[in-house]
Amino acid sequence: MSSIFTRIIQREIPSHEVYRDDYVVAFLDIAPLSRGHVLVVPIEEREYLHELSEASARALGSALPRIARAVMGATGATAYNVLQNNGSAAHQAVPHVHFHIIPKPAAGAGGGSGLGIHWQPTQLNAHDAATLADGIRAGCVGADS
Amino acid sequence: MSSIFTRIIQREIPSHEVYRDDYVVAFLDIAPLSRGHVLVVPIEEREYLHELSEASARALGSALPRIARAVMGATGATAYNVLQNNGSAAHQAVPHVHFHIIPKPAAGAGGGSGLGIHWQPTQLNAHDAATLADGIRAGCVGADS
Repeated sequence: MSSIFTRIIQREIPSHEVYRDDYVVAFLDIAPLSRGHVLVVPIEEREYLHELSEASARALGSALPRIARAVMGATGATAYNVLQNNGSAAHQAVPHVHFHIIPKPAAGAGGGSGLGIHWQPTQLNAHDAATLADGIRAGCVGADS
Repeated sequence: MSSIFTRIIQREIPSHEVYRDDYVVAFLDIAPLSRGHVLVVPIEEREYLHELSEASARALGSALPRIARAVMGATGATAYNVLQNNGSAAHQAVPHVHFHIIPKPAAGAGGGSGLGIHWQPTQLNAHDAATLADGIRAGCVGADS
């Protein structure tokens, strides 16, 4: 069973498409957090970001800034969030990688809309940090997508 | 005046570095939302994502999945958020592009830590959508980074 995003990409389900290349399609979110909320989706159907092929990952990297620029141009917003959720515990609703581009309107026009962020920082544990960094570094080395 | 991230990248300020290539450096956030919270930063110092060069954008796209995979491997988390904020209204604290990779621990071990998201969707305005999509599409066409 294809994901709903694959069906949108294949145009079995209509959408307001804003961008398409060989690897990436973008369209308006039908339940936007703010005007201009866009979903940027790799054609490759993977659940998690870390499962993507190198080609899809690079194409997404390239597409995001240009689509963001176009969204800001069309909406007049100057601030925005880019969010990509992995796993239902992290708020992922559709198991097909997607980046949200979410304009954050200034107070006044659409003020209060956009992504709400709850930021509760801790302090890096100085003893754990070196071990943790070693572990991540080892996982990055030679990790070919 | 260089950004604090440029000074970290140039190793004028110490960090727990986990990844480095010709375009991208990643290190542990010193005020993590959860264990394994990493910042992924282009060496190119730009304030907004949409200002990045094509080379930096592609390199970020390539680096994010492999660093995410390494963070999950080192922490044992299976869910995570990738967040990139643009503009102080959108919660950007340092005016140098950076992606957060933020593990979302399962309830129990570190449960409740990680990114807090407040999601208040609206309905896409069917009349406005076509105009909006046309505007964004026009902004994407021929938009070279």
